Amino acid sequence: MLTLSILGAGNVATHLFEAFSSSQDIRLLQWFGRDKKHIEKYKDKVDVTEELSDLKPADVYIVAISDDAIGPFSETLPFKNSLVAHTSGSVDINALDSKHRRGVFYPLQTLSRGKKTDFNNIPLCLEAEKKEDLDTLKTLAEAISQKIYEVNSEQRRSMHLAAVFVNNFVNHLYQIGSDICHFNDLSFEILQPLIEETSKKIKELPPYEAQTGPAKRGDAKTIEKQLYMLENSFPQYTELYKTLTSSILSAHGGKKL
Amino acid sequence: MLTLSILGAGNVATHLFEAFSSSQDIRLLQWFGRDKKHIEKYKDKVDVTEELSDLKPADVYIVAISDDAIGPFSETLPFKNSLVAHTSGSVDINALDSKHRRGVFYPLQTLSRGKKTDFNNIPLCLEAEKKEDLDTLKTLAEAISQKIYEVNSEQRRSMHLAAVFVNNFVNHLYQIGSDICHFNDLSFEILQPLIEETSKKIKELPPYEAQTGPAKRGDAKTIEKQLYMLENSFPQYTELYKTLTSSILSAHGGKKL
Repeated sequence: MLTLSILGAGNVATHLFEAFSSSQDIRLLQWFGRDKKHIEKYKDKVDVTEELSDLKPADVYIVAISDDAIGPFSETLPFKNSLVAHTSGSVDINALDSKHRRGVFYPLQTLSRGKKTDFNNIPLCLEAEKKEDLDTLKTLAEAISQKIYEVNSEQRRSMHLAAVFVNNFVNHLYQIGSDICHFNDLSFEILQPLIEETSKKIKELPPYEAQTGPAKRGDAKTIEKQLYMLENSFPQYTELYKTLTSSILSAHGGKKL
Repeated sequence: MLTLSILGAGNVATHLFEAFSSSQDIRLLQWFGRDKKHIEKYKDKVDVTEELSDLKPADVYIVAISDDAIGPFSETLPFKNSLVAHTSGSVDINALDSKHRRGVFYPLQTLSRGKKTDFNNIPLCLEAEKKEDLDTLKTLAEAISQKIYEVNSEQRRSMHLAAVFVNNFVNHLYQIGSDICHFNDLSFEILQPLIEETSKKIKELPPYEAQTGPAKRGDAKTIEKQLYMLENSFPQYTELYKTLTSSILSAHGGKKL
């Protein structure tokens, strides 16, 4: 059975800990956090430590820490020639110190603190320098998910960029929708069926074909009216409305605003 | 039992026809289309006509036509003092000719041609000038949906604006995500669990609190890298990336780009 240690005590580390600790196929050896107090409450389930020198030999070390810390931290690890994988969408595999057998174990999902996540449906994007290490990461991934992709560093950076559009930017648009509802004494709930349908529709129809709305129709009159409404309620979002409208107009061969 | 006639032969009209024709509580009297050939195939299920003079007395006439046509069309109707409701999110109730008892029956949903819709979960936003007409519209709405809201013209315009953000604009961001995937030989499928999770998360967490990503973190390094990637793959989307990033930064009290 593969042995795994998790290094890092943040959001992704905690979600991975929870996923692996309920798996029967992986032996979770240790959990390292720079400051043990964040993970101490898990000490009945796993050996927790804040001393790198305490780390025991494991088949895989998953480094789930902030992007900038990955390189420097990997240098301080007191071992070499072990499989060390980071979990970042935007950091190159080579950011890890070359004394390790390097890998990437990137869960493409929005992991919120305090919201339990079912990993089964989360795409895991794997990369390794050596074939046998990739196989090890696959075994690890299969223990918690059914969606496993081999993705190189360049593709992964692109995935991460795409994720910023479809997750972070989309969520900001939800926030604007919510602001507009509350400003008009309407519950945000009223928008939720539409939000859900919009996200489901693209499973059946490519988003380009699924596009609807005033910009797609080139409906200048509605666009003008809506800009006027924004000016009088949320002027800070008029620029965004214009840029998005122009982008849809261009993508669909319409005229510029 | 309420009698209903649908006027218009487009997308919304067709979806409403399908919803009402499977309801036991409403008697669908007639379906009018300017050009009968679009609706002729339904003639076994309903009396279809292209002559306004053929229209029989009904308790409610739903006018499901394009925004600009609502006013002029309502003038040409050869009757008065009947309840006539339009289905538009952005048109005032008063756009209907004042010879009618006016109302609005606005389904807040993205209705795609060729994709069957379950109305049960679709918010119907109702408005009428008279209390008894509002009650009639409620009876009509209850025959096809469980989510019924009384929404005045100003609120409805705001809803429609909010819908443009959470549906039309969001779908455009999905398209960009899809473009980025294909450009990098990745299936768009890989993003779908993230898209679905993002849309579900806001049922439990207000979108403001659910916000994550480089802009929320103020992670200038990642933002710069991603802008560089866009410049080299989809330069047409760099402006949009910048505007969305700035908007998140401002909303969350961060520095400007």
